[in-house]
Amino acid sequence: MFVKTLGVVGCGLIGGSIALAAKKYECFQRVVGRDIEQNALDFACELGVIDSVWQAGDEVDGVCLAVPTRHIAEHVERLQDEVAESVPIFDVGSVKKSLLGRNGSLPANFVPCHPIAGSHKSGPASADAELFRGNVCVIAPTEATDDAIVSEVATWWRQFGATVHVMDAAKHDEILGVTSHLPHVLACAAVDLVRNQGEATSKLIGSGFRDFSRIAAGNETIWRDIVVDNLTNLRIGFRELSARVETIFELAEEDPTALEDLLREITSYRKSIND
Amino acid sequence: MFVKTLGVVGCGLIGGSIALAAKKYECFQRVVGRDIEQNALDFACELGVIDSVWQAGDEVDGVCLAVPTRHIAEHVERLQDEVAESVPIFDVGSVKKSLLGRNGSLPANFVPCHPIAGSHKSGPASADAELFRGNVCVIAPTEATDDAIVSEVATWWRQFGATVHVMDAAKHDEILGVTSHLPHVLACAAVDLVRNQGEATSKLIGSGFRDFSRIAAGNETIWRDIVVDNLTNLRIGFRELSARVETIFELAEEDPTALEDLLREITSYRKSIND
Repeated sequence: MFVKTLGVVGCGLIGGSIALAAKKYECFQRVVGRDIEQNALDFACELGVIDSVWQAGDEVDGVCLAVPTRHIAEHVERLQDEVAESVPIFDVGSVKKSLLGRNGSLPANFVPCHPIAGSHKSGPASADAELFRGNVCVIAPTEATDDAIVSEVATWWRQFGATVHVMDAAKHDEILGVTSHLPHVLACAAVDLVRNQGEATSKLIGSGFRDFSRIAAGNETIWRDIVVDNLTNLRIGFRELSARVETIFELAEEDPTALEDLLREITSYRKSIND
Repeated sequence: MFVKTLGVVGCGLIGGSIALAAKKYECFQRVVGRDIEQNALDFACELGVIDSVWQAGDEVDGVCLAVPTRHIAEHVERLQDEVAESVPIFDVGSVKKSLLGRNGSLPANFVPCHPIAGSHKSGPASADAELFRGNVCVIAPTEATDDAIVSEVATWWRQFGATVHVMDAAKHDEILGVTSHLPHVLACAAVDLVRNQGEATSKLIGSGFRDFSRIAAGNETIWRDIVVDNLTNLRIGFRELSARVETIFELAEEDPTALEDLLREITSYRKSIND
């Protein structure tokens, strides 16, 4: 009997959540997994996040690569010997262009994806079949990617409850640099500042700082790769942000009423974002 | 019959929460209020946050000033004609030194306070008697402040569930510049960046950005004053933060392993902060 099987490489928060969603929404009947960390793999099995370890020779009908971005291309290459040309392989990396710079060697069955969903928590214990519901998943096909395979992968994301946006990789990286990667760097730098100021400072942390810096608890290996891979956009974004900070400081000095007007516009825009 | 009465000037989130806590924890039996906005005042009465409007001639046994920092000193001065010398007056402003620069004219019954508690919500409808529980309240007495009156006000804060830290005003402003005011400016600048990038960008906002930028929904008048009053510390803090951001960028370029180590330390520190 044919059992439609998803192979997941990387059984952490995102890979684990895809494993759970894939079965819950019946895109696949079985999920097999791999992870560079034996503990995470054992734990994912025990928790039932995956059905079993993905052994050499196991046939799969789809592959999810939930690994740090720097390892995605090598996994895609290696998988070509293991899966048929018609088997969709998709990743979930937060940066797309550096990967697609290797367009030439990427096969037609590889679909670059990025679900805009996550958590400061990590590991298979935090996996959640509903993580993607109500969120966007960006698909940034390479020149080589097969349209029919894009459609198949897009259908899975929609079944997980996500809205799919097909988008150019460079545009994706530019936007995410502003909405995700720069905030992460700022939160990390602010936490770094606080932790170097001693105990008196850490006692005066309120709920505002906790919210602001929550993202800085994210996995350091994943974020190292994101910062490395999207550095150009990050540098541009930080320059633009610094200019806006300077404007706030100058208005505070020269025209507090204009500062209040600017803050009112910002506040009003922020309130329009659903929380 | 003597009814111990608290006068609250500014019946928003903080003033309203103090009004509720003061009665719940029996520091006062009655709360009368004033607000520059008639709507807020009416609403605070209707909701039972205050018992009645504070009319000229009403006797009070304590005063809470929950107004933007630039108005605190003028309220303290004006109240001297209205309340006895023995009646404690405390504020809840987020910046202390600019106010205390006027030391000479501040009376012995004025106790500068800053509860490290709040919310991105505002107005009397968000008031909560438990807002201060488990949080710190800084008291930064002026040279003129009477010790016995400090003790009395400190007792109220402890009854509201807060831990009291007595601290030098300059030190307070320096620390809060890092843990609260700089994050606010960064969040506002990031929201400003996003709102100027058009619709495609606003669609790719995830939970990380929502957490990071929640503080940017705070009241613009209060924050205008905070930025104006603590500008020197903010400029210093932003310079230090920028240096740390540059370090992150340089490591990304030159030594990704060292970047991962730094991020690991930051992540680990952030995880040690109770959420």
